[in-house]
Amino acid sequence: MTRTVYVNGQYLPEDEAKVSIFDRGFLMADGVYEVTSVIGGKLVDFDGHATRLERSLSELDMGQPLTKDELLEVHRELVRLNEIDEGGVYLQITRGAPADRDFVFPPADTPQTVVLFTQSKPGLSAATPKPISVISIEDQRWGRRDIKTVQLLYPSLGKMMAKAAGADDAWMVEDGFVTEGTSNNAYIVKGRKIITRHLGNEILHGITRAAVLRFAREAQMEVEERNFTIDEAKEADEAFITSATMFVTPVVAIDGEQIGNGEGGGIAARLREIYIEESRKAAV
Amino acid sequence: MTRTVYVNGQYLPEDEAKVSIFDRGFLMADGVYEVTSVIGGKLVDFDGHATRLERSLSELDMGQPLTKDELLEVHRELVRLNEIDEGGVYLQITRGAPADRDFVFPPADTPQTVVLFTQSKPGLSAATPKPISVISIEDQRWGRRDIKTVQLLYPSLGKMMAKAAGADDAWMVEDGFVTEGTSNNAYIVKGRKIITRHLGNEILHGITRAAVLRFAREAQMEVEERNFTIDEAKEADEAFITSATMFVTPVVAIDGEQIGNGEGGGIAARLREIYIEESRKAAV
Repeated sequence: MTRTVYVNGQYLPEDEAKVSIFDRGFLMADGVYEVTSVIGGKLVDFDGHATRLERSLSELDMGQPLTKDELLEVHRELVRLNEIDEGGVYLQITRGAPADRDFVFPPADTPQTVVLFTQSKPGLSAATPKPISVISIEDQRWGRRDIKTVQLLYPSLGKMMAKAAGADDAWMVEDGFVTEGTSNNAYIVKGRKIITRHLGNEILHGITRAAVLRFAREAQMEVEERNFTIDEAKEADEAFITSATMFVTPVVAIDGEQIGNGEGGGIAARLREIYIEESRKAAV
Repeated sequence: MTRTVYVNGQYLPEDEAKVSIFDRGFLMADGVYEVTSVIGGKLVDFDGHATRLERSLSELDMGQPLTKDELLEVHRELVRLNEIDEGGVYLQITRGAPADRDFVFPPADTPQTVVLFTQSKPGLSAATPKPISVISIEDQRWGRRDIKTVQLLYPSLGKMMAKAAGADDAWMVEDGFVTEGTSNNAYIVKGRKIITRHLGNEILHGITRAAVLRFAREAQMEVEERNFTIDEAKEADEAFITSATMFVTPVVAIDGEQIGNGEGGGIAARLREIYIEESRKAAV
């Protein structure tokens, strides 16, 4: 099936969806993005993604070409047109395509580029996901990972390093401490306490992270937001990741060392259950 | 005049030059580039740029879709079609547009994207360029600046910080030492000695840098490749930058403090003269 995608106000077949070679997203990675999950044909935490998008744009002095309501409408229309039951909607906004390449920002009236497309992922909300293994790699990304830019080359390279090592993903390490996964936030559990890195410029402020930590606290689970090392993670009772496309997924090996019983732990399973249940209820 | 540009084997009017929204250059900054100067309608150090391009592609496990000879032919054809006397040719190669967005590399037979366009810059080889002022900013880029990727958001932001401060460009500082300018290598002169940061992953291996240092040594000038601080730079007799589009250009103020006599120094002027003379002779 050919997807229908959205490019600058138009709904188009995916193979006709193009941007100028002068687009600053293409020439300079001058763009931001969001991925919003779809469960049961509805959007999970759209508000959270729209709010983070606003912040990313603002941090880069980029305009907001569509209102939150307009964005919601495009998301819903794409879900409808592409009959997405489980999956996600990818959104990217760039500073647009000026007349020529220049490090200096283009004039403020340069139309920005807005692209959205869907990805169908049947089984996304399965109760028991396939656990993953990770390797640790040095975090070589730029300094502002709190801004969700399309500078994803290193995360992509990290994913390939993981594959080459026979693992599923990589946890990145900076100054001795885990920052996050290539496209997800990282957690360990020790003595029933959930430990994950505190927010800062060093990691993405995960929308799923915020929701999962809120649900954990509401369920009287103990949460500690602090740095941890790979060595501490290897000694943990459980490890898991969260992201908009993986929800809560157990990590059962780090650098080849088994975590817990090697099948994923009870805290991660319970958090996934709560997260999917609550998300399904609140989806729009 | 509408430029003729090159996209994947076709010569097109610039407003018809497009790439897929699924291009990994657009979605993930998974692309590399080069800019080759044109003087007198001929390419400056094409071999140097082609060799660095090969290295960038290889470091990222990307294929080389065109041979060096084919690339040269496209460069020359664009210079001819667009009647470029002084300016440059921009080249970008990405990992192409797979069927869907994924952090995992696409299948090896996915056609890569190759884009080239010209920029006309009359006066490029003027004997006396307008000197520039710089501010110092923290270097927040990723760790592999020796690979010439399109992850240029931070350099672009740096240029805007400079503009906001009333300066022309920014020198980036990491762990207390200058790395380079936003799109050029950085130099100071002290007691007739030319000082510039040694090569490593921290800076781009400038093609102009290599040529200028070679010419300097041939002219019996003393060159020292080592770290220097902003404080040392402010005390220097001269400061300058090199790049394929600025050749050798004096820096006459750093963070508002005047360098030397504030008009650019004799070493930079002499190096620019030699560089342009030799480049003109060797251009192809």
